[in-house]
Amino acid sequence: MKLLTVTDIRELVHIIGLEKFFDRIVLALEEDFGRWHEFNLSPRHATHYPHGVIELMPCSDNSLYAFKYVNGHPGNTLKDKLSVIAVGQLSEVEAGYPLMICDMTLLTAFRTAATGVLAARYLARHDAASLAIIGTGAQAEFQAIGFSRFFGLNSIRFYDCDSRAMAKFSANLKRQRWALMPCRSIIEAVSRADIVITATAAKKRQSLFEIGDIAAGTHIHAMGGDCPGKTEFSENLLRQVKLVVEYMPQSLQEGEAQQVGPGQVHAELWELIAGKKAGRENAEEITLFDSVGFALEDYSILRVVYELASVYRLGTELSMLPEPEDPKNLFGLLDF
Amino acid sequence: MKLLTVTDIRELVHIIGLEKFFDRIVLALEEDFGRWHEFNLSPRHATHYPHGVIELMPCSDNSLYAFKYVNGHPGNTLKDKLSVIAVGQLSEVEAGYPLMICDMTLLTAFRTAATGVLAARYLARHDAASLAIIGTGAQAEFQAIGFSRFFGLNSIRFYDCDSRAMAKFSANLKRQRWALMPCRSIIEAVSRADIVITATAAKKRQSLFEIGDIAAGTHIHAMGGDCPGKTEFSENLLRQVKLVVEYMPQSLQEGEAQQVGPGQVHAELWELIAGKKAGRENAEEITLFDSVGFALEDYSILRVVYELASVYRLGTELSMLPEPEDPKNLFGLLDF
Repeated sequence: MKLLTVTDIRELVHIIGLEKFFDRIVLALEEDFGRWHEFNLSPRHATHYPHGVIELMPCSDNSLYAFKYVNGHPGNTLKDKLSVIAVGQLSEVEAGYPLMICDMTLLTAFRTAATGVLAARYLARHDAASLAIIGTGAQAEFQAIGFSRFFGLNSIRFYDCDSRAMAKFSANLKRQRWALMPCRSIIEAVSRADIVITATAAKKRQSLFEIGDIAAGTHIHAMGGDCPGKTEFSENLLRQVKLVVEYMPQSLQEGEAQQVGPGQVHAELWELIAGKKAGRENAEEITLFDSVGFALEDYSILRVVYELASVYRLGTELSMLPEPEDPKNLFGLLDF
Repeated sequence: MKLLTVTDIRELVHIIGLEKFFDRIVLALEEDFGRWHEFNLSPRHATHYPHGVIELMPCSDNSLYAFKYVNGHPGNTLKDKLSVIAVGQLSEVEAGYPLMICDMTLLTAFRTAATGVLAARYLARHDAASLAIIGTGAQAEFQAIGFSRFFGLNSIRFYDCDSRAMAKFSANLKRQRWALMPCRSIIEAVSRADIVITATAAKKRQSLFEIGDIAAGTHIHAMGGDCPGKTEFSENLLRQVKLVVEYMPQSLQEGEAQQVGPGQVHAELWELIAGKKAGRENAEEITLFDSVGFALEDYSILRVVYELASVYRLGTELSMLPEPEDPKNLFGLLDF
């Protein structure tokens, strides 16, 4: 069994290259969403506490079984801890043996951005050139880099209620080719953007902006509404957009969709990829991808990482599990 | 974060001693089942394949969150693999950070035996002296050792359709003080036993024996019925015993209870421990503990192992997860 720490993941990204790693994940996601009916799907298992949530996210086909442990503790950053930490495991279905355990904190940020990009390829205008990001926390740079791979971005406007988070975002992306434009308000950031990404952490019902605050033809990648009671938009806005979700049974509990119900949902993402439903149909409509994070996305990135880790011999081979000579002689392993 | 491999678990059991390790787990289980309402409980998440099952089993209180990945592939032993492999993780709820990942293949066998013992202390006759085991696969010796800690056993009768599994069982326990009596049939093994343990692996509906085949006052620890469609007893037998389960919502799907429904269930185990319902009430009744394996049991053994591993400095301290100086600067970890 392979063990990959965050150091191994970082090394992998350096070997492959940040941009090519994104390409690889977007491709894997498109393949896997495109074979939606080959998967065992279920809403994630969430345990809610007053201060956060802990989730298990399983997804499998007939060959591989993936799951992720992930938390969401918005108050962690006040205690110098990450608000989201994740660990994943990939197993083979044939015998049920684990193949790999790995840190998924970075991978969660990568796959969330890659899924947003994949959805935007069907929902944003292809000539989108300006991006706005509301909430420049741990995920923001991943989003910016990911979107820049597939859209000819020339500017990114951004806003966060924490000015240090804005400074961090600027510093991390200063070598990129886009104009980085810090804004003094959400409205200033979103008002003329082609694509708006919302990634706020507050565990409550918010309305970051209203429909009149954005231009016709905007695509919204709405990431921050991802728990019961944690949303970023008003019902009023949601009723005026083309709303696409990942997986209806989970999104109706956790996403912006929890506010408006299934009748307001245009499609699940796989339906756009499989050509069952239309994505963007004209340059004026406002589209919203209601991203809560779905287990299939973890499956996709875990299979990519496992494959790459094998090719580049990354991670540690670990004798984690028993290997008795006689498989019925578990007790014999104890050597009593 | 600690990482414990099967080698670390074996070392731990040698340091503590096999018998004392059992005592410790039974004690922890009794404490935890005794504070049942402090836990977040849910049925396990099971993905069924034609040849096996893969499960995630989460359980937490306000302090610790535990889960286990476990498979059940009866055909694995034909390919020289274990039919059950398990990996567990313990996390702290406060910030959601993992504390320990460990092999739970041995631990699953330990906690299953310890839970059976705990139930038997409420359901078997206290003077039980003869034990029968049907199915001497990977778990059988753990059961024998566990039960011998709490009952004055003088003989163990046993039967398995695989004669090599019987020979293995004999060899592993030859230094114990009980008379080991291999039997040529299930009926021969169970007919005069005070306690009967059934641990068969076939994924189908079976009837290992009928009520007339056992003596009045027998306690049955029924382990092999643990999946939809995988049971060991007839409805007829189940209707004539005092039936106790672990957790109703899960047992009604997976246990012997799936055949008879909630009306036939006398109690959940915690109710016996909390004194809410009676255990055995006389020397004649036949009792059956319908053990499917519940996530709380994994919680209990994980907290014991974590505590002991800390005291005895076992396992490997691992830099698995990101530790950025600025918790909002996840991207900075990549060093681009």
